[in-house]
Amino acid sequence: MIYLDNAASTPIHKLVLEEMEPFLKEQFGNPSSIHRYGRKARKAIEKARNQIANLINANPSEIFFTSGGTESNNTALFGVGRQRPESKIITTSIEHDAILEPCKELEKEGFDIFYLPVDKYGLVNPLDLETHLTENTSLVSIMFANNEVGTIEPIFNLAQICKEKNIIFHTDAVQAVGKIPIDVKKLGVDMLSISSHKINGPKGIGALYVKKGISLNPVIFGGGQENGLRSGTENVANIVGFGKACELSKIDFLENSSKMQELSNYLSKKIINEIPHVTLNGHPELRLPNNLHFTFLGVNGEDLLIKLDECGIAASTGSACSVHIQKASHVLQAMGFSHEQISGSLRISLGIFNNLEEMNQTVEILKNVVKELRSVSPLKEKYSF
Amino acid sequence: MIYLDNAASTPIHKLVLEEMEPFLKEQFGNPSSIHRYGRKARKAIEKARNQIANLINANPSEIFFTSGGTESNNTALFGVGRQRPESKIITTSIEHDAILEPCKELEKEGFDIFYLPVDKYGLVNPLDLETHLTENTSLVSIMFANNEVGTIEPIFNLAQICKEKNIIFHTDAVQAVGKIPIDVKKLGVDMLSISSHKINGPKGIGALYVKKGISLNPVIFGGGQENGLRSGTENVANIVGFGKACELSKIDFLENSSKMQELSNYLSKKIINEIPHVTLNGHPELRLPNNLHFTFLGVNGEDLLIKLDECGIAASTGSACSVHIQKASHVLQAMGFSHEQISGSLRISLGIFNNLEEMNQTVEILKNVVKELRSVSPLKEKYSF
Repeated sequence: MIYLDNAASTPIHKLVLEEMEPFLKEQFGNPSSIHRYGRKARKAIEKARNQIANLINANPSEIFFTSGGTESNNTALFGVGRQRPESKIITTSIEHDAILEPCKELEKEGFDIFYLPVDKYGLVNPLDLETHLTENTSLVSIMFANNEVGTIEPIFNLAQICKEKNIIFHTDAVQAVGKIPIDVKKLGVDMLSISSHKINGPKGIGALYVKKGISLNPVIFGGGQENGLRSGTENVANIVGFGKACELSKIDFLENSSKMQELSNYLSKKIINEIPHVTLNGHPELRLPNNLHFTFLGVNGEDLLIKLDECGIAASTGSACSVHIQKASHVLQAMGFSHEQISGSLRISLGIFNNLEEMNQTVEILKNVVKELRSVSPLKEKYSF
Repeated sequence: MIYLDNAASTPIHKLVLEEMEPFLKEQFGNPSSIHRYGRKARKAIEKARNQIANLINANPSEIFFTSGGTESNNTALFGVGRQRPESKIITTSIEHDAILEPCKELEKEGFDIFYLPVDKYGLVNPLDLETHLTENTSLVSIMFANNEVGTIEPIFNLAQICKEKNIIFHTDAVQAVGKIPIDVKKLGVDMLSISSHKINGPKGIGALYVKKGISLNPVIFGGGQENGLRSGTENVANIVGFGKACELSKIDFLENSSKMQELSNYLSKKIINEIPHVTLNGHPELRLPNNLHFTFLGVNGEDLLIKLDECGIAASTGSACSVHIQKASHVLQAMGFSHEQISGSLRISLGIFNNLEEMNQTVEILKNVVKELRSVSPLKEKYSF
């Protein structure tokens, strides 16, 4: 199989699993225990906290573990929002459901949620944000890079605007971490969500960066772990793996990101040159190095996926992190795409383990599959396939 | 090391880890993906759901995965509670913080929380529950077995009382699962919390049993996983391990529980016979087969723990699932214990891997350590140690 769905999930790196193994075996202590099993688990967690902080230039005390990107986003929104009931929260129309759904919930609780529009590339305009900020705004949450089309938002500018008005700025950086350089201090963001399984770490673990001085209400209450922000016995093995994944991501950053960029450039050019009626969606330059999102006119995206799967390629139509997989993409709708353009979409997301040979095979398979599907397409005549 | 802190956490069973391994290696798909990686992950989750349902005689569709026991408890309380704002919720004064802290939060939100008292054994009186139930009561949550002293509550009777008045009954069964037989249908409970790492499964995963027909508000919102109740990419490897742990727990139930019961009987008698001024706390019979909770008069529990750790024994003063470890036990306070009795407490919790030889060694070490600590105790004269 050629795995081209790394935006959905990634394989665990061998060195990550090696690091986890003692904590899946003999080091099984509860980090809250006083005895040596507990102390070793506690120490391992703090090491991982350092590794994560290091990757984004935060202080370790600013890193809070959660069960994943979704919980990180929920904690940011509910944690800040519920401190100022009925305030205004500004986000965008192209966020992941892990932002949009908590926003809907906050709307029910009386919050005023404003969804910034995007242009045809999926870009937010900082002037739009400036226009909509009010005295009553408690929080702005804008994703670092879009999970479907890969467009990178102007986070520095957006964060600056919030800073000037003293409004807390959160970014869902789940897709961006490990792909583009992130320095929370330079960017000036107040909160940032990370997920482990998108950067070759284990699933079920993530973190929320919370700048010193910002106070949050917890979402989950209990024993008071994570400085009271997130109760529950820590998922030690996965935390350790997540830490290692961040360390590797930092060490191998240049090599990995340039490799993914080269492969995706190569693949993109080859697909556009060799298959007719194809467009690359999202911004042509301001995009993640590992993301390619195409529209193959006249093809149904899900048929395409199933055919590709049969031919040994794992890809996606868009977001995988949703069970409402049949729903038309809200991201492409916000970008002003027609039904036809949305229907024929395919997301290819590369990972650190892909290679050139796989890119060549992908183009060959894609050519045949697209040709086959177009031969029975209702749009066959319209586009004279 | 002799590990006697299985109520805090347990080692992962070898067969559990074996089952997890493919999902930490080649089977890394996101269960929401359409391609074969995704489908295999989805299938594995549904297998685990069956294994968990089997252990407690639930239907698989009644099992919802969470990040652990704490989140299960939070989901039960917030999920039911927030559907009836300002209603009454009845719980007990000896619950785990994962119940007490969400209750405090609900109190802030305007709920009327009533804490049932317990007797000197830590037992709730069903008549007390009956007295305090009102029309406005939305939920009753009473733990199956106490995590500190091991007392088993009369869950069948308590659930019956709620059933008659049509009030939802939840039980935190984190300590009870795998130790005593649990059949949700026979017991008549509506919701039940389980944690994987207390039954030789991995950490960071748990489940909430929700009887068909009961509707809950989610706590975490997003992609709509777990039938909308719990969003976020599923922690596949840990879910698979949790499922296997439940399967093993069912298969080995009689062997494990009788072995733990024999060992704890043996250890308890030997400690009481060979060390003076010792009492066994909690109910003499209605207690978990693996729990022993003692008061060693004139000894400080934490000093005892540290000495035991130095001598190769891992135990606990009470709950480990709390970072507020210095706080006097609210459970023992509710049972009417004096400061002296609370201060000298030690919890020994056995697991499926303990053996008789370890029990003998434990008594020898404990004898010496207690003697040593009593020789410098301020209560030395009072009790003529």
